[in-house]
Amino acid sequence: MSDAWSAAEFEARLRQIGAERYHDKHPFHGLLHDGKLNKGQLQAWVLNRFYYQKSIPLKDASLIGRADDIDLRREWIGRITDHDGGKDGGGGIERWLILAEGVGLDPAYVASCKGVLAGTRFACDAYVHFVRDRPLLEAVASSLTELFAPDLHKTRIAALLEHYPFANDTTLAYFRTRLTQAPADVAFGLDYVLRHACNRDQQEACLAALLFKTDVLWAQLDALHHAYVSPGLIPPGAFVPEDRQ
Amino acid sequence: MSDAWSAAEFEARLRQIGAERYHDKHPFHGLLHDGKLNKGQLQAWVLNRFYYQKSIPLKDASLIGRADDIDLRREWIGRITDHDGGKDGGGGIERWLILAEGVGLDPAYVASCKGVLAGTRFACDAYVHFVRDRPLLEAVASSLTELFAPDLHKTRIAALLEHYPFANDTTLAYFRTRLTQAPADVAFGLDYVLRHACNRDQQEACLAALLFKTDVLWAQLDALHHAYVSPGLIPPGAFVPEDRQ
Repeated sequence: MSDAWSAAEFEARLRQIGAERYHDKHPFHGLLHDGKLNKGQLQAWVLNRFYYQKSIPLKDASLIGRADDIDLRREWIGRITDHDGGKDGGGGIERWLILAEGVGLDPAYVASCKGVLAGTRFACDAYVHFVRDRPLLEAVASSLTELFAPDLHKTRIAALLEHYPFANDTTLAYFRTRLTQAPADVAFGLDYVLRHACNRDQQEACLAALLFKTDVLWAQLDALHHAYVSPGLIPPGAFVPEDRQ
Repeated sequence: MSDAWSAAEFEARLRQIGAERYHDKHPFHGLLHDGKLNKGQLQAWVLNRFYYQKSIPLKDASLIGRADDIDLRREWIGRITDHDGGKDGGGGIERWLILAEGVGLDPAYVASCKGVLAGTRFACDAYVHFVRDRPLLEAVASSLTELFAPDLHKTRIAALLEHYPFANDTTLAYFRTRLTQAPADVAFGLDYVLRHACNRDQQEACLAALLFKTDVLWAQLDALHHAYVSPGLIPPGAFVPEDRQ
């Protein structure tokens, strides 16, 4: 077995994956942030991305359910409540439905997940299965795409406000909230991974987990781009925007 | 609960899903069968479809592993040996690698599954997980896309022989063999589903399982079409044909 990388070297390799493979570089995000998407394309993005949002508490709960370490559980549970809110409501899923309403979708339709692309489902379900089935360390490592999320969210908030009439403080609340939540989460996750990946094999498994996660994000945009942008082949059973009916 | 459909009505509804959603209607198959794919696109299809072939014995083994019914197990085990061959070789996976060599790919590269699209992996893994996690009846029902496969394989053999120089009895052995295997398998599977789906809820669950399976097949072609045909956006890490390098 090769020698373990130093923490600095290992962290640099994790960050390098973001620089090369994070979905901020997908052409669909280019169109979104340049104000080039029409209403139906925006709706398709919001609808499909909801399925991802809805998968997050499932993967986080199964991660906690496999963690013997109480400190990890105490920290990680905040991710579930960040997304699910409390008995009185709130939370990222609810905020995403406010965004959905803002782009002209029926929140009940979005919440039903009818019309979500099969490609979206398979990618998000792959993430849930990964976290459920792989060693805990890799499950934590797969969350580290959050290292790269705040920059994307900052860009997105500014771009949406500039280009799209639906964008305002209410509809964009999801992204604003994530600006503060994600850095706190990922500081813990990164520290955990750096401390628990003790040998080269574990470090490489963490890199593979993060690479897998960038594939999960990228494949969602591929499916969306193919169905709604170019060539625009909507698969049978998927959401059909008004201008394509 | 609504009344159960008659066997004839239930079977007609299963076949209707094929008529509407089977992947013979995907534009990628139109291009393949009209001789419109270049070498790199053909290679991408063979490479990605290998991942599906390789997933089949896994899902069949997990189905058998959950079946109390010895008759089902005795019947179903032939599917595994059809794909895996015996100790002396043979089998569908090996025949697929012969096809891969025929289109100019290194069989060892194909067998490694490096370069397979994330969209392919997620779709095939979704199928394996579905068969592992859902009730046995639904797992059997999800195999019924084989009702529609022989017609597609007949069309394909004729079309490949007409349009592509690589096509001959050796390279197309996979498809020829499936012409006799699939009908025998599916006769058992269809009979099993018709006999064991006793009420409307079970019948509807079987329809949903078959619909899910058509999504698994369709999403693979969507990913392939997006990466290698139109718009031709190859995701990071995926196979890059020679003419795209």
